[in-house]
Amino acid sequence: MTLEEIADFIGINCQEKKEITGLNTLLDSNENELTFLENKKYLSDLKNTKAAAVLVTSENASEVPSGTIALICDEPYLNLARISKLFAPNVVEMDGEKPLIGGGTKVMPNVYIGKNSIVGSDCTIMAGSFIGDNVKIGNNTIIYPNVTIYRDCTIGNDCIIHAGTVIGSDGFGFANTKDGKYIKIYQNGNVTIGNDVEIGANCAIDRAVFKSTIIEDGVRLDNLVHIAHNCKIGRGSILVGQVGLAGSTILNAYVVMGGQSGTAGHLEIAPFTTIAARGGVTKSITEPKKSWAGFPLFEHKQWLKLQGKISNLLK
Amino acid sequence: MTLEEIADFIGINCQEKKEITGLNTLLDSNENELTFLENKKYLSDLKNTKAAAVLVTSENASEVPSGTIALICDEPYLNLARISKLFAPNVVEMDGEKPLIGGGTKVMPNVYIGKNSIVGSDCTIMAGSFIGDNVKIGNNTIIYPNVTIYRDCTIGNDCIIHAGTVIGSDGFGFANTKDGKYIKIYQNGNVTIGNDVEIGANCAIDRAVFKSTIIEDGVRLDNLVHIAHNCKIGRGSILVGQVGLAGSTILNAYVVMGGQSGTAGHLEIAPFTTIAARGGVTKSITEPKKSWAGFPLFEHKQWLKLQGKISNLLK
Amino acid sequence: MTLEEIADFIGINCQEKKEITGLNTLLDSNENELTFLENKKYLSDLKNTKAAAVLVTSENASEVPSGTIALICDEPYLNLARISKLFAPNVVEMDGEKPLIGGGTKVMPNVYIGKNSIVGSDCTIMAGSFIGDNVKIGNNTIIYPNVTIYRDCTIGNDCIIHAGTVIGSDGFGFANTKDGKYIKIYQNGNVTIGNDVEIGANCAIDRAVFKSTIIEDGVRLDNLVHIAHNCKIGRGSILVGQVGLAGSTILNAYVVMGGQSGTAGHLEIAPFTTIAARGGVTKSITEPKKSWAGFPLFEHKQWLKLQGKISNLLK
Repeated sequence: MTLEEIADFIGINCQEKKEITGLNTLLDSNENELTFLENKKYLSDLKNTKAAAVLVTSENASEVPSGTIALICDEPYLNLARISKLFAPNVVEMDGEKPLIGGGTKVMPNVYIGKNSIVGSDCTIMAGSFIGDNVKIGNNTIIYPNVTIYRDCTIGNDCIIHAGTVIGSDGFGFANTKDGKYIKIYQNGNVTIGNDVEIGANCAIDRAVFKSTIIEDGVRLDNLVHIAHNCKIGRGSILVGQVGLAGSTILNAYVVMGGQSGTAGHLEIAPFTTIAARGGVTKSITEPKKSWAGFPLFEHKQWLKLQGKISNLLK
Repeated sequence: MTLEEIADFIGINCQEKKEITGLNTLLDSNENELTFLENKKYLSDLKNTKAAAVLVTSENASEVPSGTIALICDEPYLNLARISKLFAPNVVEMDGEKPLIGGGTKVMPNVYIGKNSIVGSDCTIMAGSFIGDNVKIGNNTIIYPNVTIYRDCTIGNDCIIHAGTVIGSDGFGFANTKDGKYIKIYQNGNVTIGNDVEIGANCAIDRAVFKSTIIEDGVRLDNLVHIAHNCKIGRGSILVGQVGLAGSTILNAYVVMGGQSGTAGHLEIAPFTTIAARGGVTKSITEPKKSWAGFPLFEHKQWLKLQGKISNLLK
Repeated sequence: MTLEEIADFIGINCQEKKEITGLNTLLDSNENELTFLENKKYLSDLKNTKAAAVLVTSENASEVPSGTIALICDEPYLNLARISKLFAPNVVEMDGEKPLIGGGTKVMPNVYIGKNSIVGSDCTIMAGSFIGDNVKIGNNTIIYPNVTIYRDCTIGNDCIIHAGTVIGSDGFGFANTKDGKYIKIYQNGNVTIGNDVEIGANCAIDRAVFKSTIIEDGVRLDNLVHIAHNCKIGRGSILVGQVGLAGSTILNAYVVMGGQSGTAGHLEIAPFTTIAARGGVTKSITEPKKSWAGFPLFEHKQWLKLQGKISNLLK
C-alpha cells in the first residue's frame, strides 16, 4: 500500500507513491514502515527514526528528520489506529498451502490447523486444539486439548502447552475518538515462544501490536497467567498462578514472580529478581538478584519490617 | 406451571390455579411471576411488588400487598432455590429449528450451533466454538476459537470475542439447607452484549439469575476478566486484565478498572470513574469522574499520600 | 521397573532387582515405591518411611531405616525429577478399551472420550469437551462445552463442570540443575472430585504429583479459580471467583474463601473458616469458625480496626 493511499484513507494529502509494508514504533521502524508521535516524551526517538513516514501534529513536524516524511494530522495515535486496520491480515485464510506435519506427530480428532502452518516431528496436538494460519511449531512439543494458537505465532521445540491456554489473542489496544468511541489498534504482531517452555492451563498471552511478544527458552508459566502485548519474558523466568503482566513489561532472565503478583506496563525487571506472591511492580527494577514484596513494592525484608510496624498500630 | 403445582412441590398448601411464568425479584416481578422475601431489609420492596405470589415467612406475611398471594414457608430463599429448577430450560435442546446463518458468515469446522439460534451476516465463527440454543448474534461479529456461548444469550453487531471466553455460564447462586447441603438456584436469565464490544481471551461472564447480565455498547474487556451474574457494564467501560466483579455490580458509562482490581457485589459506580490497578471497591461510588485506588479504597491522591505516611513508619 | 534400572538411569550403582511401581512421599510410600529426602526438615519422616528405597545424600544416608534401600546421590530432588519421567503414562493411549457410556447419557458432537474411560448414566457431555483416557465420571453429571479432563481423573455423581474448565493439568513442579535448566517432575497423580460438586467456567485444577488433588462432596467453585497440585478442598467449601490456592493447601470442611483471595502452599485451614475477599493466607489456621481478612492476614475485626488506624495516618 502506498503512502498516498494511506494518507488518502485518513483524509490528508500526500502524493508520495512509496510502498509501506507495515507500522512500527519510532525506533524500530525501517525505511518501508510508517510510525507516529503522539506523546512529546518520545521526541528524542523521533529524531532517530528511520521510518519512511511519521504521523505527527503540526506542532512537532519540525522535529521530523530529513529522511522521513511527515504526515501532519491532529490526532496521530487515533489515525494510527485507523490505519492499522489496513495492515491486518485475514482473520482466517481461505487460500494457501495445506499444513505440513512432521513425522511421528500425532494429530487427534477435532483439531484445526491453518494454511501454511508447519508442525515439527514427534509432536502431539490434542483434540479440540486450534492452530491458526502460518503458525510454526517445533519438534517434540505437546499441545493439550482446547488450546488456541492464533495465526502467525511460533512455538519452539520441547514445549508443553496445557489445556485451554490462548496464545496470540489481540493485545488490548485502542485509541479514543473525541465522542467516546474506541478505534481498535489492530495487533499485527505475533507471539514467539522459545524451546523448553511449559505453559499452564487457561493462560492468555497476547500478540504484539508490532513485532513480537516474546517468551524465551526455559520459561515456566503456571495456570491462569495473563501476559499482555509486547511483553518479553526472559530465559528461565518462572511466573506462578494468576500472575498478570501489563503491556511491554520486560522480565530479564530468571525472574521469579509469585502467585497473583503483577506489573504495570512499560517497565523492566533485572535478572534473578524475585517478586513475592501478590507483589505489585510499578517501576523498573534495575538491580539484579533482589527480593521484593507488597503493593506498593518494597524490598522483601523492608516489607516484612513494615508489616510489623503497621500491626503495631493496633496496640 | 400453576401456583398450586409450585406450592405442592415445596410441600405447602395453595389452591390457586394461576399460571406462573417465572421467578423474579420483588420489584421486577410482573403479575405472572413468583418472588420471595428472605431479608427484612427488602420489606419496602415487598410493599411495592406486583408479583403474582411471594414466598414469605409467617412473620412478614402481613406486609404482602393485597394483589399478591403469600406462600408462607419457613425458608423462602431455600424454597426459591428448589422452585428455580422447575423453570430451568433444557441443558441442550433436541428439538427446534435449525440455526439461521446470515449471508457472508463463515462457520469453521468443529463448531456447534444450537436450535433456534440466529447468526447475522458477515460474521466469522471459528473452529471449536460452541453457540448454544436460542442464541442471537448480530452482523460482522468475530467469535474466535473455543469460545462457549451458553443458550439464550445475545451478542450485538461488530463484536469480537477472543478465544476461550465463556459467556452465559451459571451465576454462583445456591441456598443452604440446615444440614449443610447447597441447593442450586438455577440461573434462568441470560447475558446480553451490545454492539462494538471486544472481550479478551479466557474471560468468564455469568448469566443472570433472573433477567440479564448486561454488557453495553462499546465496552472493552481484557483477558481473564470475571463478571458475575446480574452485573451491568455501562457503555464504553474498560476492564483491564484479571478484573473481577461480584454479583449485581453496576458500572455506569465509561468506568475504567485497572488490572486485578475488583468489586464487592450489589454496588454501583458512577460514570467516568477510574479505579487504579488492584483497587478493591466495597461501597458504591456516587460522584462521577473521580479516581480511586487501594484496598480499602481511597481517592487516588489520598491513597498515594497515605502510602507515603505508611512508608514513614519505617523511619 | 527394577531399582537397578532406575539407579542405572541416574548413573548410580545398585544391583537390587526389586520392582518399583511408583514414586511417593516419605510417609506415603509403600514397600514398592521410591521416595526421596532433600530437605533436612523431613528427617523424622525418613525414619518412619516404609518405602522400598530412598534417594538421599551421603550426609543423611545413616538415617535411612533398615527396611529401606538408600540410593545415595548428590541431588536427590533433581534425580527424583529425572526418574519421574520413567513413571509417566502416555500422553494419549492408542490402545485400550473403547469408553463405556451409561444409559441416558448424551454425548454431543466434537467430544473426545479416551480409552478405558467410563461415563455413568444420565450425564450430558457437551460439544468440544475432552475426556482423557481412564477417566471415570459418575451419574447425572453435566460437562459443559470445551471442558478438558485429563487422563486418570475421576468425577462423582450430580456434578456440574462449566465451560472451559481444565481438570487434571500438570502441577507446577520442576527441579533445577546447577546450570539453570528446569527438569520437569512428571505429575503422575490425578484429580478426584466427589459428588454434588459445581465448578465454574475457566477454572484450572492441577493433578497431583503423587496420589490425588481432592475436591470433596458438595464443594462449590466459582469462575477462574486456580487449584494447584495436591490440594484438598474439604466438603462443602466455597471458593469465590479468582481464588488461587498454592500446592498442598488443605481446606477442611466448609471453608469459605472470598473473591481474589489466596493461600501459600503446604498449609491447612480449619473447618468453617471464612477468608474475606482478597485475603492472603500464609500460615495454617487451626481454630475453626473464625473470620479473617487482609494480606498479611488478621482476624476480620482486627483487620477492620487496623484499617481505621491506618487511615488515621492521613490526619
